[in-house]
Amino acid sequence: MTLSDAQQLEIDEARQAHTSTLRPTVAALEEILFQPIPLLDHGFIRVIDYMGDDNAVVQAARVSYGRGTKKVSEDRGLIQYLMRHWHTTPFEMAEIKIHVKLPIFVARQWIRHRTASVNEYSARYSVLDREFYLPEEAQLKAQAVTNRQGRGDGLEPQEAAQVLDLLRGDAERTYANYVWMLNEDQDGAKADPDRDGLARELARINLTLGTYTQWYWKTNLHNLMHFLRLRADPHAQYEIRVYAEALVDVFARWVPLTHEAFLEHRLGAVTLSASAVKAVRRLLAGEDAAAASSSLSPREWREVTAALGIDTTTK
Amino acid sequence: MTLSDAQQLEIDEARQAHTSTLRPTVAALEEILFQPIPLLDHGFIRVIDYMGDDNAVVQAARVSYGRGTKKVSEDRGLIQYLMRHWHTTPFEMAEIKIHVKLPIFVARQWIRHRTASVNEYSARYSVLDREFYLPEEAQLKAQAVTNRQGRGDGLEPQEAAQVLDLLRGDAERTYANYVWMLNEDQDGAKADPDRDGLARELARINLTLGTYTQWYWKTNLHNLMHFLRLRADPHAQYEIRVYAEALVDVFARWVPLTHEAFLEHRLGAVTLSASAVKAVRRLLAGEDAAAASSSLSPREWREVTAALGIDTTTK
Amino acid sequence: MTLSDAQQLEIDEARQAHTSTLRPTVAALEEILFQPIPLLDHGFIRVIDYMGDDNAVVQAARVSYGRGTKKVSEDRGLIQYLMRHWHTTPFEMAEIKIHVKLPIFVARQWIRHRTASVNEYSARYSVLDREFYLPEEAQLKAQAVTNRQGRGDGLEPQEAAQVLDLLRGDAERTYANYVWMLNEDQDGAKADPDRDGLARELARINLTLGTYTQWYWKTNLHNLMHFLRLRADPHAQYEIRVYAEALVDVFARWVPLTHEAFLEHRLGAVTLSASAVKAVRRLLAGEDAAAASSSLSPREWREVTAALGIDTTTK
Amino acid sequence: MTLSDAQQLEIDEARQAHTSTLRPTVAALEEILFQPIPLLDHGFIRVIDYMGDDNAVVQAARVSYGRGTKKVSEDRGLIQYLMRHWHTTPFEMAEIKIHVKLPIFVARQWIRHRTASVNEYSARYSVLDREFYLPEEAQLKAQAVTNRQGRGDGLEPQEAAQVLDLLRGDAERTYANYVWMLNEDQDGAKADPDRDGLARELARINLTLGTYTQWYWKTNLHNLMHFLRLRADPHAQYEIRVYAEALVDVFARWVPLTHEAFLEHRLGAVTLSASAVKAVRRLLAGEDAAAASSSLSPREWREVTAALGIDTTTK
Repeated sequence: MTLSDAQQLEIDEARQAHTSTLRPTVAALEEILFQPIPLLDHGFIRVIDYMGDDNAVVQAARVSYGRGTKKVSEDRGLIQYLMRHWHTTPFEMAEIKIHVKLPIFVARQWIRHRTASVNEYSARYSVLDREFYLPEEAQLKAQAVTNRQGRGDGLEPQEAAQVLDLLRGDAERTYANYVWMLNEDQDGAKADPDRDGLARELARINLTLGTYTQWYWKTNLHNLMHFLRLRADPHAQYEIRVYAEALVDVFARWVPLTHEAFLEHRLGAVTLSASAVKAVRRLLAGEDAAAASSSLSPREWREVTAALGIDTTTK
Repeated sequence: MTLSDAQQLEIDEARQAHTSTLRPTVAALEEILFQPIPLLDHGFIRVIDYMGDDNAVVQAARVSYGRGTKKVSEDRGLIQYLMRHWHTTPFEMAEIKIHVKLPIFVARQWIRHRTASVNEYSARYSVLDREFYLPEEAQLKAQAVTNRQGRGDGLEPQEAAQVLDLLRGDAERTYANYVWMLNEDQDGAKADPDRDGLARELARINLTLGTYTQWYWKTNLHNLMHFLRLRADPHAQYEIRVYAEALVDVFARWVPLTHEAFLEHRLGAVTLSASAVKAVRRLLAGEDAAAASSSLSPREWREVTAALGIDTTTK
Repeated sequence: MTLSDAQQLEIDEARQAHTSTLRPTVAALEEILFQPIPLLDHGFIRVIDYMGDDNAVVQAARVSYGRGTKKVSEDRGLIQYLMRHWHTTPFEMAEIKIHVKLPIFVARQWIRHRTASVNEYSARYSVLDREFYLPEEAQLKAQAVTNRQGRGDGLEPQEAAQVLDLLRGDAERTYANYVWMLNEDQDGAKADPDRDGLARELARINLTLGTYTQWYWKTNLHNLMHFLRLRADPHAQYEIRVYAEALVDVFARWVPLTHEAFLEHRLGAVTLSASAVKAVRRLLAGEDAAAASSSLSPREWREVTAALGIDTTTK
Repeated sequence: MTLSDAQQLEIDEARQAHTSTLRPTVAALEEILFQPIPLLDHGFIRVIDYMGDDNAVVQAARVSYGRGTKKVSEDRGLIQYLMRHWHTTPFEMAEIKIHVKLPIFVARQWIRHRTASVNEYSARYSVLDREFYLPEEAQLKAQAVTNRQGRGDGLEPQEAAQVLDLLRGDAERTYANYVWMLNEDQDGAKADPDRDGLARELARINLTLGTYTQWYWKTNLHNLMHFLRLRADPHAQYEIRVYAEALVDVFARWVPLTHEAFLEHRLGAVTLSASAVKAVRRLLAGEDAAAASSSLSPREWREVTAALGIDTTTK
């Protein structure tokens, strides 16, 4: 990730501008405010603004008049309770806004989360930068066999090199042709005075899905957790997971008690279906695994035994 | 509106707790932060938190790296442009959270705006205060004649007095019976040891729709404006309009440039239907009012002439 | 529940009007279309319209060109898979619309589900019927002791009778005064020509929260399941649970495969927190309950042991 | 647009399967149900399902018990009233579901409308067809001069031909390389047994934004109108406008009275800002254009005079 001098200057200036406020402030988040966290080859997230903290969740749940003198231990207990029993509305009372630079194919997955506000950089109005995603070699993998979506084993070095050459070559060529069709110099004047140049909204269709775009994205804490539960999951595509994991770190800085409850009751939790509950009850009653598994599909039984560390070898 | 000593103390303490932040801060809004603005006989709104300012709208529209050194005049121009052309997403990038005390019948109108977050005081869990709305005499009016919803002329003093007596009597009696059924003293113990007392979730059904409730309500600037356009309108019921008008003042303190554009392009704007456009074109071309009105219903013609100051007297 | 003759006639006529359609049709739901299902003392739900069936979920998941000749067993498998892995968007592709008559305090809980469309009968525009909810004696219970919201044991008969008398008396008096204040006869003319009558939007504030209202409510299958998971739950207030349970029956008629998957992966499922997973792993590894419980709060341990049938008696 | 034989067969079969229903049915929409309407070079929309008709809007607004015997003229009047006064909830009570094939850059604009349900064909799971958008020559235009987004005049034939060659060449090459990287034959087996082939979720990043995707899209009538107001507007990009205009025709078949009201109060309406209202009042009072324009920006004055047919030539 590289920023232009002008961009870096804007960020530096914003980092100087301290003001006094009565609002709840989170020191650990102020530390990284506005600073880009580099992701993939050209991407980043940076936190632009936030509203509320762990205490704001508690305050809303209590519809209280002040921030109160409650102890951290009471806040922790209430937050755990709310999270566990799906009392989700208090978590809607905190809000975060980030600036994200990301490849278009990642943006297309991200935008499926509808309960957020988005302002994307307009390629009808502006020219996109010459930045496109090229995976690291370690990420070049074959289609997964067991799972019909997702990646399996890594490619052989030779095939990986060929793939990277193709991806790079096509990205460079399509971008160069985009520029040629636009026919604009840096000041927006015609590069070649004898051609009109194609409208931006059309020229962009030549770009590949690996091209970077950027947007402002704002969501509340409840919807953020929903996003993270799906996108920080091992089944999510690697490239969006990288963003989700960086956001988990931001989340932990911002509202550490909520983050703790999230790990306990969402990311680290296991949901057993009605049939899986029956199977576990039989195991706990002393039946053997072969018998207990009878009401589950092989796939679900595999998932349950993995999640609960059940020994499936026959004795 | 009266606050308990404990509530006032919590607010006073919150007003002492200054911290330093890098986030955009609005001095005019900080001045009133946490302070209740009294409304109706027992209600209030108080601002609990906010995110962003006018500049945050501009920054999102530009997907920019800093707050920049843009002049106020440029920000004003862009905000007017966005408002006029219904580019609404940048206005979603600012957020406000308020604490509201309001009669239940007002709450029922308010909640129809679904794009907001709400935490309401739970009458399953807690006992409601002895506070119910009694209109001022000047607000006691008959059903409107021209408009089949809404109020018309004021009641005669005698009838108004009778109405107020009934409203007060029924509110007091139903509240007293609520308390009797609950059978709780101030500490939640039994008031009469020989009775069980009825569960709160049931006892509350005896209360009238004038009883006050309270909630935390959080919404973004775009949805706030939508709410205000409908609820600060003369057709809105007086009691919710009082809240909307107080919110318009908060809005003006918070984001003055957006407020200015809202008055220009929303509250003060007039929309002409396709037929009304035709009528106005005919007027501007010199035809007389009688001719121009021919394609409109009498009701729409009346509204158009009122809005545009058209003289409808025949010459 | 009683319908007026005119209402019954309208329903009967609608039940005659068969037409031919190419759209997916569900015979079991057509059987009960438009017919009110009585609930509580004066309430009902009746299905007004629906879009899609189980196959429509499958079709959307596959983005297919036809309804296909897929076997029921394949549809069942895919629906179970989607439900289990929270691929929720295909369930948004079916929609249902119902007409509900319900007490206002139930309506206030119901409306908190924001992802639905609602048209409520307007008490600004019309006069509400003389119908208010009076609980059956068996439902009159004291505040729960273990759970700080909800009901515990039933009241003694004498106290129950007193409570019912109060509820009935206050509902009748406040309704009678509502009518007096309105001063309208059945045709909307003045009952007493010497009084103006109070505007409907104000007179209604004298009614209690037990008064019945009605609305059209439309939601998609995904949001319906979310509603049912929360409101058909034993922790939901009895009065809304009655509606949710009736809706579960409608749901089973409409999309039986989705209903089956819902029971398996939602209503009958158990979610274990990260700590509970550890405890269960220790139990399955042969440790005793006392040891296994050490990382859980007593309350969570109680819930986990109940859900999984764990014997907590020390040997 | 070409359909495979299997796709055409599925559609033909679905068009045979008549059933009887009590639900409101719209003959004019049944006529085209499931049939693709070709758009651009490879795209289409086809209506998959619908719920409700004009009468359903009326029925919801009235919270009525039957479809009633109301006359069309009364329905028309009520629908006009609802539309004019922004009583939007009854329009949420009708729903439509369509299958759309569209270029990815159009899909990216479309998806910004968040209040809809979407199931997109997954390129993580499946291989995309070899179909990419190439504009007709008449659509190849230069960047607009007056409007900083959008298209202006057409390109010269020679430049247009060069542009088309580039777009076609890059689309073909990137698709061919996509196929090479996937290394799959038609049955999903390896095309070249000596290579692993790249996972689908990665290979797709080589495709351009002109590649076609497809989805199921479902929305209610209110949100459909919001979509059409923005996307059937001359300022919308041509390629999405083509889809919006085809949807306007579908809309007219489905709910003709609502469509009529939409043209009258939305598409054909003109909104005057507070300042524009003042200017029009001055014109109507006989002042000349030069005087009247003084409070408006030149741009807004131009728009107002165009909309109202005001003669701006000085006398």
